[in-house]
Amino acid sequence: MSGENTKNHAGFRVETDTFGDINVPNDKYYGANTARSLINFNIGGPSEIMPIAIIRAFGILKKCAAQVNEEFGLDPHIASLIVKAADEVIAGKLDDSFPLVIWQTGSGTQSNMNVNEVISNRAIEMDGGVLGSKKPVHPNDHVNMCQSSNDTFPTAMHIAVAQECFSRLIPAIDSLVAGFESKIKEFESIIKIGRTHLQDATPLTLGQEFSAYLQQVLYAKDRIKSTFPRLMELALGGTAVGTGLNTKKGFAEKAAAKLAEDTGIPFVSAKNKFEALAAHDTLVEFHGMLNVFASSLMKIGNDIRLLGSGPRCGIGEISLPENEPGSSIMPGKVNPTQCEALTMVAAQVMGNQTAVTIGGSQGHFELNVYKPLIVSNVLRSIRLISDACISFNTHCLQGISANKDRIQYLRDNSLMLVTALNPHIGYDNAAKIAKNAHREGISLKESAISLGLLTSEQFDSWVKPENMLGPN
Amino acid sequence: MSGENTKNHAGFRVETDTFGDINVPNDKYYGANTARSLINFNIGGPSEIMPIAIIRAFGILKKCAAQVNEEFGLDPHIASLIVKAADEVIAGKLDDSFPLVIWQTGSGTQSNMNVNEVISNRAIEMDGGVLGSKKPVHPNDHVNMCQSSNDTFPTAMHIAVAQECFSRLIPAIDSLVAGFESKIKEFESIIKIGRTHLQDATPLTLGQEFSAYLQQVLYAKDRIKSTFPRLMELALGGTAVGTGLNTKKGFAEKAAAKLAEDTGIPFVSAKNKFEALAAHDTLVEFHGMLNVFASSLMKIGNDIRLLGSGPRCGIGEISLPENEPGSSIMPGKVNPTQCEALTMVAAQVMGNQTAVTIGGSQGHFELNVYKPLIVSNVLRSIRLISDACISFNTHCLQGISANKDRIQYLRDNSLMLVTALNPHIGYDNAAKIAKNAHREGISLKESAISLGLLTSEQFDSWVKPENMLGPN
Amino acid sequence: MSGENTKNHAGFRVETDTFGDINVPNDKYYGANTARSLINFNIGGPSEIMPIAIIRAFGILKKCAAQVNEEFGLDPHIASLIVKAADEVIAGKLDDSFPLVIWQTGSGTQSNMNVNEVISNRAIEMDGGVLGSKKPVHPNDHVNMCQSSNDTFPTAMHIAVAQECFSRLIPAIDSLVAGFESKIKEFESIIKIGRTHLQDATPLTLGQEFSAYLQQVLYAKDRIKSTFPRLMELALGGTAVGTGLNTKKGFAEKAAAKLAEDTGIPFVSAKNKFEALAAHDTLVEFHGMLNVFASSLMKIGNDIRLLGSGPRCGIGEISLPENEPGSSIMPGKVNPTQCEALTMVAAQVMGNQTAVTIGGSQGHFELNVYKPLIVSNVLRSIRLISDACISFNTHCLQGISANKDRIQYLRDNSLMLVTALNPHIGYDNAAKIAKNAHREGISLKESAISLGLLTSEQFDSWVKPENMLGPN
Amino acid sequence: MSGENTKNHAGFRVETDTFGDINVPNDKYYGANTARSLINFNIGGPSEIMPIAIIRAFGILKKCAAQVNEEFGLDPHIASLIVKAADEVIAGKLDDSFPLVIWQTGSGTQSNMNVNEVISNRAIEMDGGVLGSKKPVHPNDHVNMCQSSNDTFPTAMHIAVAQECFSRLIPAIDSLVAGFESKIKEFESIIKIGRTHLQDATPLTLGQEFSAYLQQVLYAKDRIKSTFPRLMELALGGTAVGTGLNTKKGFAEKAAAKLAEDTGIPFVSAKNKFEALAAHDTLVEFHGMLNVFASSLMKIGNDIRLLGSGPRCGIGEISLPENEPGSSIMPGKVNPTQCEALTMVAAQVMGNQTAVTIGGSQGHFELNVYKPLIVSNVLRSIRLISDACISFNTHCLQGISANKDRIQYLRDNSLMLVTALNPHIGYDNAAKIAKNAHREGISLKESAISLGLLTSEQFDSWVKPENMLGPN
Repeated sequence: MSGENTKNHAGFRVETDTFGDINVPNDKYYGANTARSLINFNIGGPSEIMPIAIIRAFGILKKCAAQVNEEFGLDPHIASLIVKAADEVIAGKLDDSFPLVIWQTGSGTQSNMNVNEVISNRAIEMDGGVLGSKKPVHPNDHVNMCQSSNDTFPTAMHIAVAQECFSRLIPAIDSLVAGFESKIKEFESIIKIGRTHLQDATPLTLGQEFSAYLQQVLYAKDRIKSTFPRLMELALGGTAVGTGLNTKKGFAEKAAAKLAEDTGIPFVSAKNKFEALAAHDTLVEFHGMLNVFASSLMKIGNDIRLLGSGPRCGIGEISLPENEPGSSIMPGKVNPTQCEALTMVAAQVMGNQTAVTIGGSQGHFELNVYKPLIVSNVLRSIRLISDACISFNTHCLQGISANKDRIQYLRDNSLMLVTALNPHIGYDNAAKIAKNAHREGISLKESAISLGLLTSEQFDSWVKPENMLGPN
Repeated sequence: MSGENTKNHAGFRVETDTFGDINVPNDKYYGANTARSLINFNIGGPSEIMPIAIIRAFGILKKCAAQVNEEFGLDPHIASLIVKAADEVIAGKLDDSFPLVIWQTGSGTQSNMNVNEVISNRAIEMDGGVLGSKKPVHPNDHVNMCQSSNDTFPTAMHIAVAQECFSRLIPAIDSLVAGFESKIKEFESIIKIGRTHLQDATPLTLGQEFSAYLQQVLYAKDRIKSTFPRLMELALGGTAVGTGLNTKKGFAEKAAAKLAEDTGIPFVSAKNKFEALAAHDTLVEFHGMLNVFASSLMKIGNDIRLLGSGPRCGIGEISLPENEPGSSIMPGKVNPTQCEALTMVAAQVMGNQTAVTIGGSQGHFELNVYKPLIVSNVLRSIRLISDACISFNTHCLQGISANKDRIQYLRDNSLMLVTALNPHIGYDNAAKIAKNAHREGISLKESAISLGLLTSEQFDSWVKPENMLGPN
Repeated sequence: MSGENTKNHAGFRVETDTFGDINVPNDKYYGANTARSLINFNIGGPSEIMPIAIIRAFGILKKCAAQVNEEFGLDPHIASLIVKAADEVIAGKLDDSFPLVIWQTGSGTQSNMNVNEVISNRAIEMDGGVLGSKKPVHPNDHVNMCQSSNDTFPTAMHIAVAQECFSRLIPAIDSLVAGFESKIKEFESIIKIGRTHLQDATPLTLGQEFSAYLQQVLYAKDRIKSTFPRLMELALGGTAVGTGLNTKKGFAEKAAAKLAEDTGIPFVSAKNKFEALAAHDTLVEFHGMLNVFASSLMKIGNDIRLLGSGPRCGIGEISLPENEPGSSIMPGKVNPTQCEALTMVAAQVMGNQTAVTIGGSQGHFELNVYKPLIVSNVLRSIRLISDACISFNTHCLQGISANKDRIQYLRDNSLMLVTALNPHIGYDNAAKIAKNAHREGISLKESAISLGLLTSEQFDSWVKPENMLGPN
Repeated sequence: MSGENTKNHAGFRVETDTFGDINVPNDKYYGANTARSLINFNIGGPSEIMPIAIIRAFGILKKCAAQVNEEFGLDPHIASLIVKAADEVIAGKLDDSFPLVIWQTGSGTQSNMNVNEVISNRAIEMDGGVLGSKKPVHPNDHVNMCQSSNDTFPTAMHIAVAQECFSRLIPAIDSLVAGFESKIKEFESIIKIGRTHLQDATPLTLGQEFSAYLQQVLYAKDRIKSTFPRLMELALGGTAVGTGLNTKKGFAEKAAAKLAEDTGIPFVSAKNKFEALAAHDTLVEFHGMLNVFASSLMKIGNDIRLLGSGPRCGIGEISLPENEPGSSIMPGKVNPTQCEALTMVAAQVMGNQTAVTIGGSQGHFELNVYKPLIVSNVLRSIRLISDACISFNTHCLQGISANKDRIQYLRDNSLMLVTALNPHIGYDNAAKIAKNAHREGISLKESAISLGLLTSEQFDSWVKPENMLGPN
């Protein structure tokens, strides 16, 4: 199969499980369980397959389990074959042998068996054996040794999420942090009008405004990290219901240690295996942090497109980079498309939050059976939010420029600079000045003087935007 | 109790249910089931009591059921007593005898028993009997005759929702429709710049812009009405599991007809009583329509505060009425507070949608046991959205004025009037004109002429906002 | 490209848009806008591409628009080329020229331009022209004639959803209806114990129990149909902001009629084009109906796996078909996997409901910019729910068998048959019998006699499950 | 007013704000802003008033702010009056002067002014002044000194949530922890059948099963605590837009320290005041933890009512305490009502999560204007979940008893004890034994022997439930 000669062996071979015989395509490594699942779960089409991150995590798990099983007596040759085949799963060489969809059994049993079968058959092939013979490497007795779907699938869930978190999410957050930091520096001395309730308010710098976004992104990282004590827990060793039946004492801990060593991620064995199989609260929690981040990004994306609205009939304080033609009918139009992608992703993540929460709340007794639903949503949210952050940073944030003239014009016309007068003439008098200016269409200063509430000199010395940027 | 002299009878009387004796305050009509529920469900405090609309609906139900039961042989004197006591429930005279919270048994059994007990005791009192004696009017055998909590509570749910729909929701929608109609007429000839992606686009009238909001509100009404074929169905007659055990043939139909006559709402007996007890899909559907309306109101509220943003540093095309001081620190500030209340209500309704959906999806076998959760959310959403529509219309929409000078200034400076040139010089040439004007900070006309793409006369005859408001 | 010889033309060609030149792979028909989008929106990977149903709907739209434009003066040769190329889009021959992801501009402009470019280039190729030359068929001036992304994308949204609804969703519902109808007939005379609150209740037939599920599914169809008056409305003719600028009078209506004729679906032109661009309330409404159906399916799936729980330690009233080995560690285990897939799909649809609602509530002024988010969720929900219904019906429902012995055993041991005694001896006495039986662990009859409340003959004549299935 | 004699002063007095004069009832301390809000926001009725926890938190805030302001120069007499009046707010003596509803301005400005007005007037009254005179204690210039609604309302939000967390939520969790711990001890040696997918699985102890619930509850506490680094941050000192305009250097830090001292909760001044006003991510995060807990409680409540299902036709492994009559029609019925209240609360909290998330994602620029929505949902969720945990523990969990005979009967009849044979005879042979036993309706042992796969002695020594409770 992996060799040239197997390409010619078109057609099917017979594989067997406890339900009997079934045909399997000759050019696939999977076995009877997988073939049966393909027939029974024709739901959603190819875009709905089990995320590949889960398959890779299973590869790592099976490899480490075999190594620990060898310590507990598994034949070293068999162990070695499993490790080699698992390495190919990890490297992505066997991806097309994992065709099952998310919408299968809620324990992910069929995906676990899919992995068991592929590793078994590939190991058998490496050993010169007959595919489907289960000899010398049996998918259940050897590849799945000391394991159950019920503990391996949740283990693969945590491994996959942690890996995607470290390889994708945190770097994306870091890049967005760096992006905001550079803009804050760039904008630190640009004084602009603030807006609360979408109404003109007291001034701040554009850098200060952007510093709120930075803080939100920084806290996104803190929030995600705060889940690690629980995310690092692995269910492996609980087997069928959490008791660890058919494992050896020490297997759970050794396996977690091996997985930590292999991945460089500080995994530990779960404190309570019953909880680790029966509930996925920790993934509901983890997704809750993505949900907070999505909520932050919705705010940020909205603000930035509003600040960039125009070019002539909006707020127009900043200009967003022009990346593409914006309209098929309006020539020359440029739109805040990165903000749109970002906020659409945010809405999707908020929707996924509901799905994950419902899935996490269900299931009965010793097993939550919404595992593929839960993990597929968490992984999709990670991917979308990570990619969208990078895209937004690269194609939008970095290219934002401040329209200083426009910013100054708006700031100097605002009525809310009047707030600086409160300590001098009181709130009620200050309000009179602002309201009179608004009604008459005149400047604050004109209004203040015409009302006889202060002198021109007093106004000039008290109302200075540059003195309104902090406590005094 | 209802008379002056009972006020002096302080202390407690003993009431009895199948669990035994329990003390009940002398100044309350309720009995043992209610007293027990108060002890067992100390959840949430007084703001969490069962919505009074449910209690009133129960009053109507008990009254009509007694009248139909009389046709089937219930003693006319007893029936008459039940009717009189139920009338007091309907009139709100006994409201303080219904203290139970939403968070009780999921079938609402305790609220049904609360009603049975109050009607029984008040009827006994009217007849000169002894409170708690269950004679001559027994709460189960007479007031609950031919009924179960399992069919009465869902019946009360539909009655209460339908009544609130007709008395509150639809009038509120109608007032908002009228509000938008009058503004559309007022704004029909004000030509303004359109905005897509928050970027300047081709022009439309302010009336056209508001007509989108009107259409959304009109469809809200259509959507709500589209649920009526199912909302009008009543579960009554299904008793414990939907079979109608212990009712008489014809009871369900006669009772529904009586309820329709009494309320003036075209209720009918549910097609399938098993579904009517075991699921509340129709309330999930009904709330789904509130959810759509909430989504519309979020858009409308956001648009209107954005159009009114300023007064000097925003879009400022319209002015919202000034209803109150807007800031405790910024003197003279006025905020779009009605839009804020409206959009907060919208967010709450969207949250309630999740709660109702989850409640509707749960429950096992013959009975959904999330009934109080579901109906309390539907009723709260109706109330909030109705009140918010009226408040928004009265205190905001009606007082909106168009800032015609600002509107004209923005429109005449926009670059997107260039779209009118597409049929004359093609999209690509039109794009050149717009981009050149943007880059150079000049007008479209200047740009067009400087690029040699058309003459001043051509520009003037082709680019007329008033000709850009429809197909030609 | 479509011919053999083009396969050899490896490498790139230069395409142009208003932003300038860009390289495009020679073996793709798309142009500059698409190429630019691929660079700017690297979000989510291949599983996140715009649903193909949208692309096909666009094909139909562009074909019909060209035909109507011909009536209004478009060169017949150009129109004919557009129609031919669009036919290939509809037939799926050009699918690999549509690589853009969902997470792009929120108006779907880039997908509209992708379609314009592919049709333009394929039409040019058919005419023997040079790809990228825009001659004789220009992507904007001809393929997009009288159109904007802002009206075409929402039009494609409604067409795609309606088509998927008719071709996928309604047939799936119909098959589930037929499935339940046949089981109801099969189970109509099997009398079983009812359960409310998961506690034993009065009896009903297994057919009656399943009739509730049937009613839920039947109403799902009614609910979906109730959205059609609004779903059939098409935005086409609104162009950029809803005014219909750059279209001809009558274009909108003729185009809708042509689309209705072409698809056999009774589309009409939208009443208010401003609403049709600025809001997608109707898709929020439509998804709300999917959400109700998901809620129904969650209940149904839960009930059926509970009824089939066991085989020896659960309720075990029915047996579900055994489709596959259920456990990688517990030999011989068979699980309700179809129920699990079904309820996971239900949870996903409920999550999508939140995403669609949020997307629908956002956007500003003349354009909702969450279009790809909204439609991708609606289409995904349709697909998942349709496939899951068919899978569940085929692989689970049809194979369910009733365990009559078990059903009879449970029924005859239940205490709730006591309810039949209410009309004879009153609620309080009946309660005594049931409670005594429960406490003593004896039968109802034994309890009734030992308490002296009725005779053996009375018990036998009054307590007959077969008489407890309806009113009397 | 607080004295007897003021009761006679019926009617109204005139209060003034920057909008002019308005009548205020003589028996209320509030002023013009509050009176105006009552007119403008007639939304939802009395059950929708601003949570009293917010008002109390404001009392603490105003007290501490006055004390710090005194350090910065506020007249000590005025400061002292403010402190005394604030103490009455904290003690709940003035509750009926806070009538405003949640659905007001989204910054909570009117509630802040309500507090300012009440403290001002009460302080004036204490000083013998004239209500409404604003002398000697002005609501803006003194009570609101160095503050804005924009920083005080979010500060009150964090104070109220933290106080409710410490006084209500954590004690409720602790009581549930203790409840589970005692049951786990009680159930630690009861060996029962496990269930996965609702199908019989390998055994565990009832104590082990309950230990999963305990772990979920323990982690709920960890999760809530993990938000404290951010929840402890207070916005105070940011004033209108986050800059701290009109405060003094050091005010923010001193005020936070004073608040920490006063409450005993380790509050600190927010790192970034712009973020603290413009976003409420931390409350979205905090509610996310309540959402996880709700998800846990849904699972726990469902499991426990399923384990207690029956009494004769369900699983029946445990008995729940009988607290009340369960049915108005079925005599003697007892229902798992505490589980129902608990799971309804869980569904409500999940709905609130959506509302909080949407509210958190919105708002523009320097101010999130969904503050009352957000905090009211967080406080309601805390209250409901806390009360429900205590009610469930007291009225359900503590009274659960194990039905040991039933548990043993089910365990000994299960087929999944066969899993113990995997290491001895392999998965495939073990499957044969189980399937044969199921098909023939015989015991595992009979099946094993009849298939000739092992001897009676082997079976007895290998298949021992008590040896199946952990690794070996």
